[in-house]
Amino acid sequence: MEHAGNVVLDLFLMFAGGKFLAEVFERFRQPAVVGELVAGIILGPSLLALIKPNELTLGLAEIGAIFLLFTVGLETKPRDLLQVGWMASLVAILGVVLPFAVGFFYMRVIDHSMIESIFVGAAMVATSVGITARVLADAGVLSTRMARVILGAAVIDDILGMIVLAVVSSLSSGKVNYLSLGIVAGEAIGFSLLILFFGSRVVGRLRPAVARLRARNAAFALSVILCLGLSLASVYIGMAAIIGAFLAGLALADHSEQYRLQENAHPVMEFLAPFFFVLLGAQVNLQSLNQPGLIGTIVWVCVLAILSKLIGCGLGALKLGYRDALRIGLGMVPRGEVGLIVAAVGLRLHTVSEAIYTVVLAMSIMTTIFAPPVLRLVLPKRDEEPAKA
Amino acid sequence: MEHAGNVVLDLFLMFAGGKFLAEVFERFRQPAVVGELVAGIILGPSLLALIKPNELTLGLAEIGAIFLLFTVGLETKPRDLLQVGWMASLVAILGVVLPFAVGFFYMRVIDHSMIESIFVGAAMVATSVGITARVLADAGVLSTRMARVILGAAVIDDILGMIVLAVVSSLSSGKVNYLSLGIVAGEAIGFSLLILFFGSRVVGRLRPAVARLRARNAAFALSVILCLGLSLASVYIGMAAIIGAFLAGLALADHSEQYRLQENAHPVMEFLAPFFFVLLGAQVNLQSLNQPGLIGTIVWVCVLAILSKLIGCGLGALKLGYRDALRIGLGMVPRGEVGLIVAAVGLRLHTVSEAIYTVVLAMSIMTTIFAPPVLRLVLPKRDEEPAKA
Repeated sequence: MEHAGNVVLDLFLMFAGGKFLAEVFERFRQPAVVGELVAGIILGPSLLALIKPNELTLGLAEIGAIFLLFTVGLETKPRDLLQVGWMASLVAILGVVLPFAVGFFYMRVIDHSMIESIFVGAAMVATSVGITARVLADAGVLSTRMARVILGAAVIDDILGMIVLAVVSSLSSGKVNYLSLGIVAGEAIGFSLLILFFGSRVVGRLRPAVARLRARNAAFALSVILCLGLSLASVYIGMAAIIGAFLAGLALADHSEQYRLQENAHPVMEFLAPFFFVLLGAQVNLQSLNQPGLIGTIVWVCVLAILSKLIGCGLGALKLGYRDALRIGLGMVPRGEVGLIVAAVGLRLHTVSEAIYTVVLAMSIMTTIFAPPVLRLVLPKRDEEPAKA
Repeated sequence: MEHAGNVVLDLFLMFAGGKFLAEVFERFRQPAVVGELVAGIILGPSLLALIKPNELTLGLAEIGAIFLLFTVGLETKPRDLLQVGWMASLVAILGVVLPFAVGFFYMRVIDHSMIESIFVGAAMVATSVGITARVLADAGVLSTRMARVILGAAVIDDILGMIVLAVVSSLSSGKVNYLSLGIVAGEAIGFSLLILFFGSRVVGRLRPAVARLRARNAAFALSVILCLGLSLASVYIGMAAIIGAFLAGLALADHSEQYRLQENAHPVMEFLAPFFFVLLGAQVNLQSLNQPGLIGTIVWVCVLAILSKLIGCGLGALKLGYRDALRIGLGMVPRGEVGLIVAAVGLRLHTVSEAIYTVVLAMSIMTTIFAPPVLRLVLPKRDEEPAKA
């Protein structure tokens, strides 16, 4: 009974706290997701210490992120993503090269080791599309060309980020194995392109089989199985699970209306996603900021992380005009959970100091908190531009 | 990354395995929920050993049960439940007294200790309404008078079961404290009646405040907060969390259509409930059946558990005619997770032997597997009786 009580108490605090601050932030015209992050910081170990990450809440956060990207995928038709393919690639590549270079050289200049410098550079590469996707969805502009460039670039970005992460992991063991690195990269790119080009067609072929199923709401159950299955495949290939969830949504997007998949997946996402964002906030350790000189390094790394993505990705999207280039650059700024994964990998491999871990953690969170309100300021108003192009 | 892979693998195996066997069982005209239980036995430690209960999957199962009872509550209007109040009380009381007496005396006859006999009797008292509710929902008869008697009796039954559980827990510490026992029972009964009579009215009063909220789908978020909040209150009072979830659904049932709560809560339940049923199956340890004489005791306890509920509850509902009395008796047979909670409490308090723990576990599972297919055989056909009375 005590265990059950603790489980329900954690869920209640995280969900109610997140939703309460989300509402407060909405009232001040700030993104709801920042409210949920702040709720996590307040409820977490640094301040009230009412919640702390455990196996259950971390698992719920993971499932929340999976459903978040799944619903984003469901709203993204493959055809639309392919239309922006070249520009998205350019945005992603410039948004990887510039942040890595800037982060690496800054850390070398202030006399950090080669490995630590590569590690900080690698953490600055990642993009957490989940948070931007939520801001875009809240603003009702998910179907615009600009949003599609961001989502497409984020997918490519994650593939590139995965390669960089593989390099960092192999560095710690002494040397880079170019062959296995090439295999991992090839698998990841091949997997994504395969689903992008053929996923929707395969799902279409299964229509008669789905119609014969007896279970209630069988199409939704099957879509969840596909989502979990591709998430699992992503993890085995070496990418984040959320990439597979996004690809599953993509493969189902053309059939979403027929099977009422969005109506079914959205409530699950709305229940689970707050656990992801609240826990992201709860992982902030405010005490670790007391180290001398650390604040300065954090400020510089944060500024460089923001500017390098803004300029790199913005340059890649300049053809769409200054305004959309700015929006795309800002949309790519949040590092979120992807930066945190890099930080966790570095700490586990014992290649970086605790201080650098704190820097990367702070950078992930600051870019995540910074981008949404600014992005919101420059997004088109709901009535200025129609949501459905 | 490895951790994320394990999490997603567990989810995939449990969800896909459960849904696959649910479909197979549906094809043989058996309840889907038994398919999910069998999937758990096959995937669990006894056979394939592909999944095992851990903090995350146990937590998901708990949330699954909470959402299951929440959606059942959403479909139960308080007025309808009050209409069957007296009969439900009679069904519940006879369904508690007879199983306890039968279980207690049988164990005494085969020479078990006083405490072990009380413990087995207590485990035979509980009713797991979740499984029956799913069978009733699948058959489309949730709104019939018979279904309402079962749901009402199960609520009262859980309150009585909680009192019996409190007695068992206090027995292990030497003596029964009648005063604290009375306080716990009074709180539980008062809490349930309070929400039954006033919950719906309070929710109605909040309508203008809900209309002013800015967040997307704010009514659903609020309903989840109420569900988790009342679940938490139930745990603190000493009842199972699912009772609070059911009461929250009950308080919201009159407003469910206006806020589209069922459309939102159902997909969450459909995603999470399979984890509850699959894990219930995964907790079966087939190896522990090797003890000499244990099979005989299990068979006897199972037969007595089924007959005593069937006769006790059936007698209470005889006024509705033999057919509905039989349905109600069968609907009250599954002990499910409530029996398992009693078993776990007994084992933790070290008042009972491992063998008796196995007996109670087997009884909980056998009654749960036995009742749904038999109940399904005697339920009215969808076209024989209109679903909405």
